[in-house]
Amino acid sequence: MHIAILGGTGVIGRALGIRWLYHTDHEILIGSRRADRAKRFAEEYRETVERHGGQCSVSGWQNEEAAANADVVVLALPPYHIAGLVEKIAAGLTPETILVTPSVGMSRTENGLCYNPPAVGSVTKLVAEHAPDDIAVVGAFHNLSAKRLADLEATVQMDTLVVGNDREAKRTVMDLAGEILGIRPLDAGSIDNAAETESLTPLLINVASHNDGLSDAGVKFG
Amino acid sequence: MHIAILGGTGVIGRALGIRWLYHTDHEILIGSRRADRAKRFAEEYRETVERHGGQCSVSGWQNEEAAANADVVVLALPPYHIAGLVEKIAAGLTPETILVTPSVGMSRTENGLCYNPPAVGSVTKLVAEHAPDDIAVVGAFHNLSAKRLADLEATVQMDTLVVGNDREAKRTVMDLAGEILGIRPLDAGSIDNAAETESLTPLLINVASHNDGLSDAGVKFG
Repeated sequence: MHIAILGGTGVIGRALGIRWLYHTDHEILIGSRRADRAKRFAEEYRETVERHGGQCSVSGWQNEEAAANADVVVLALPPYHIAGLVEKIAAGLTPETILVTPSVGMSRTENGLCYNPPAVGSVTKLVAEHAPDDIAVVGAFHNLSAKRLADLEATVQMDTLVVGNDREAKRTVMDLAGEILGIRPLDAGSIDNAAETESLTPLLINVASHNDGLSDAGVKFG
Repeated sequence: MHIAILGGTGVIGRALGIRWLYHTDHEILIGSRRADRAKRFAEEYRETVERHGGQCSVSGWQNEEAAANADVVVLALPPYHIAGLVEKIAAGLTPETILVTPSVGMSRTENGLCYNPPAVGSVTKLVAEHAPDDIAVVGAFHNLSAKRLADLEATVQMDTLVVGNDREAKRTVMDLAGEILGIRPLDAGSIDNAAETESLTPLLINVASHNDGLSDAGVKFG
């Protein structure tokens, strides 16, 4: 499968990219606003994976090109850039393309980090509203520790919650998540349930900051 | 310590009551609108604990009486009854009383269960706004499976998230939580962070309904 990671030079994009490259045979297309920057990062990901004995196929592209050549497009960008990017890449998508959003709106107050979704209710819903009607949108990978994921020597034992209205697309993304060793995908419902899923991210960060031994914590249901 | 559980005849009130009676020496005051109903439930909790070899001190009261005689008052009621009850019990509280709220606003849509907080942002904040100014309010016990907790033969391995603005009161409630075998209390920040904590409850229920083997799931951070 061809997976584009737009914003693939950021921390969660890098973490997902390196893990898919290490654990699977999928071809990863790193996207950035500038192709030369994406290519430089792609090279670094390849070197990281090869240093750990892995073989992989990774390349760097300008965002629109990466999206147009992928089966699954991960929008690993801050929420305020998402809507504009979705509109930019829309023309290049096929009806089979799946858009995946791991992004969360948060605001820092004097009393800690709070969930701060866009007016439509969640970033996942924002993406769905800006995507072409025939494109499936799936929310996933919000609640993972990018630091642990990016460290190929770290043990990953984390659940990731997946929401979406298109069952087949949700299943595809859950399968892709489960191919990363130590990640268990859980179905958290429809896009209407994205807010509960996204708001777990500031909770995780607050728990990490207030309790010893839980920096870079993930979450397990059971 | 004297712990009043108002709404102590409901599922989460019963679960907390039985566990505290079984694992600790605290005196539990079950509160209900009608004292005779509270007394009947208190008797059932005592029998349950004694059947499992425990000894305990539990009694049934009308809500206001239970609150007036407790160090810690757990408001185990549906959110739409909370504000009225806080105003009813206010006169009987001392400045040392701690109010604990485990309640969560949820609504069921055609696409699943969603977090539906009161207009002030969370039930915890609602309680804080209706409580006398000198009374500490702590949010806790939202994300526990009442069914597993109430079954003294079930293994409890769950974290509970605790929020509050008064550090000492929060510490007291975390200690009370940790005295229940298998529950690990985690500090999730101030009352401003209550929404992220409360919204984990519909997420847990959705995860339970969409995934095999996760009915009555709790959550562990790590």
